[in-house]
Amino acid sequence: MSSAQYDVLGIGNAIFDVLVRTEDDFLVRHGMAKGGMALIDEARAAAIYADMGMATEISGGSAANTIVGLASFGARAVYVGKVKDDQIGKLYSHDIRAAGVTFDTRPASDGPATGCSYILVTPDGERTMNTYLGAAQDLGPADIDEAQIAAAAITYLEGYLWDPPQAKEAFLKASKIAHGAGRKVALTLSDSFCVDRYRGEFIELMRSRTVDLIFANESELHSLYQTSDFDTALKQLALDVPLGVVTRSEKGCAVVEENNITLVPAAKIDTLVDTTGAGDLFAAGFLFGLVRNAGYENAGRLAALAAAEVIQHIGARPQVSLKELAQQHGLPV
Amino acid sequence: MSSAQYDVLGIGNAIFDVLVRTEDDFLVRHGMAKGGMALIDEARAAAIYADMGMATEISGGSAANTIVGLASFGARAVYVGKVKDDQIGKLYSHDIRAAGVTFDTRPASDGPATGCSYILVTPDGERTMNTYLGAAQDLGPADIDEAQIAAAAITYLEGYLWDPPQAKEAFLKASKIAHGAGRKVALTLSDSFCVDRYRGEFIELMRSRTVDLIFANESELHSLYQTSDFDTALKQLALDVPLGVVTRSEKGCAVVEENNITLVPAAKIDTLVDTTGAGDLFAAGFLFGLVRNAGYENAGRLAALAAAEVIQHIGARPQVSLKELAQQHGLPV
Repeated sequence: MSSAQYDVLGIGNAIFDVLVRTEDDFLVRHGMAKGGMALIDEARAAAIYADMGMATEISGGSAANTIVGLASFGARAVYVGKVKDDQIGKLYSHDIRAAGVTFDTRPASDGPATGCSYILVTPDGERTMNTYLGAAQDLGPADIDEAQIAAAAITYLEGYLWDPPQAKEAFLKASKIAHGAGRKVALTLSDSFCVDRYRGEFIELMRSRTVDLIFANESELHSLYQTSDFDTALKQLALDVPLGVVTRSEKGCAVVEENNITLVPAAKIDTLVDTTGAGDLFAAGFLFGLVRNAGYENAGRLAALAAAEVIQHIGARPQVSLKELAQQHGLPV
Repeated sequence: MSSAQYDVLGIGNAIFDVLVRTEDDFLVRHGMAKGGMALIDEARAAAIYADMGMATEISGGSAANTIVGLASFGARAVYVGKVKDDQIGKLYSHDIRAAGVTFDTRPASDGPATGCSYILVTPDGERTMNTYLGAAQDLGPADIDEAQIAAAAITYLEGYLWDPPQAKEAFLKASKIAHGAGRKVALTLSDSFCVDRYRGEFIELMRSRTVDLIFANESELHSLYQTSDFDTALKQLALDVPLGVVTRSEKGCAVVEENNITLVPAAKIDTLVDTTGAGDLFAAGFLFGLVRNAGYENAGRLAALAAAEVIQHIGARPQVSLKELAQQHGLPV
């Protein structure tokens, strides 16, 4: 895949993260499902924010975090996502470009504000997200640049794109262009609640070969096939998609390709601070390994390393060069 | 001082911090004086920001950080500072209120955007600030609420207020009201470059008893009296102001009152991450000790503890309850 101008192009909901440390009772008081991502409207956003403590703001968005991680490894990365041209949208655009990512999506000049997510981080390091999509709702097929998609070895999409109405069309358009150019398409299932909303459509995306690679965590996989048995779900995944990568937190990950399973252990950490971005950065490392033809074992190790970095601090984007980190760990970059 | 409705009221430039880790060569390339605070205009702000890496945003502002620290100790605290009613101003207002601080200053509805500071944190943990004052420039005497000032045991002012044109008048008005109500007025010298700009006026503020308590670090004190000899400067400070508190980083602090000097050691830290807010949180702890009549020794220890907390993470506001931290260290709260 080295002939492509870009290694990975990611499409997702552009979301500014508003992070706050809180106790579990805040989640209970507001009826939040711990560990999940709930979509909220403006009124609920205001109610949650009014009750939240002092926050730290960092650019986020699932696919955007993955793309920033790829750039940090040294990959040539592109992001497609919609902000508004407001103050927060400008912070967001700055950050993703400062990370070395190509970001050309036209910001909205009217309509809702740049999307944001109120992320509650409990003492156990778990994050619970409440996302107001805002301008991200307006991402549509017109934002997909055919030449850019065709120029990327892998187009990476987040399942969360199934929430805003037009993004699904953008997703399908991008997949068609990518495949037409002989490229690959990857999808992360994003969240078990998201899988619950779009189970049938996600399975159809795999079986119709609209996507070639699936990233899922254990609970997303269980939700997808509505089974509590891991092996059953994994076997079904192997039947449905050419390549599946399933993360299992501290138990590492499983890479399934037809009848072959590669197991890779998780990377060691000192202290779990904030799980926000764990899956996103895992995907970054794995995709980087893929585009560098490093093999599944090394791709899994790069993925585990990136995930371990991001969960040891607040925020979903790497605070060190992942390229240097990988070199320190003797991994190929 | 326990009869007051509020313990401390702080007046300062309301500034949103945009923090980024960087190497020293960034400072050199942009001609920045390491460790200082430089005022920048919109054009320079844009040029610096365009070259900066991915940032983390956290509400800041020197006196505001101090006031948030006081609230974290459990004090009844008020803040007076000017933001615009834009997106960043709303984040700022939320954060200070979420910290338990009373904040009633009317935001500007037109004029420049909410002020922000581009803070470069180098690998040694030192911070270099580039501040665009924005709406903070419009803080004026009309923003001083006589009843609120009169109700606070201590009014705390930052030297940085000497930069915007009308804030100085607000400062003098507040001091007059406070003294008229039998209250005390404290001033932090803010920054050695700031002292250099307003040396004569700051000395006059002390000698005219417009302020009763001065916070300074070593370099500010040396700049104030234009001497490199610490003891000479300290003796002069004792002559000029009823109470002087001088911080000396890892050497602790000296509290001078007439002929008495109390020395208090610094608190131990594991890792210096970011010095932003060290002086602000030191002042918070000391003022808290004062309003609780804990004595200078304990006030100095509370101050050292709060400063130690804030320099071990990114951002100038405490990430844990300072009240609980003080209790864990057996200090009076």
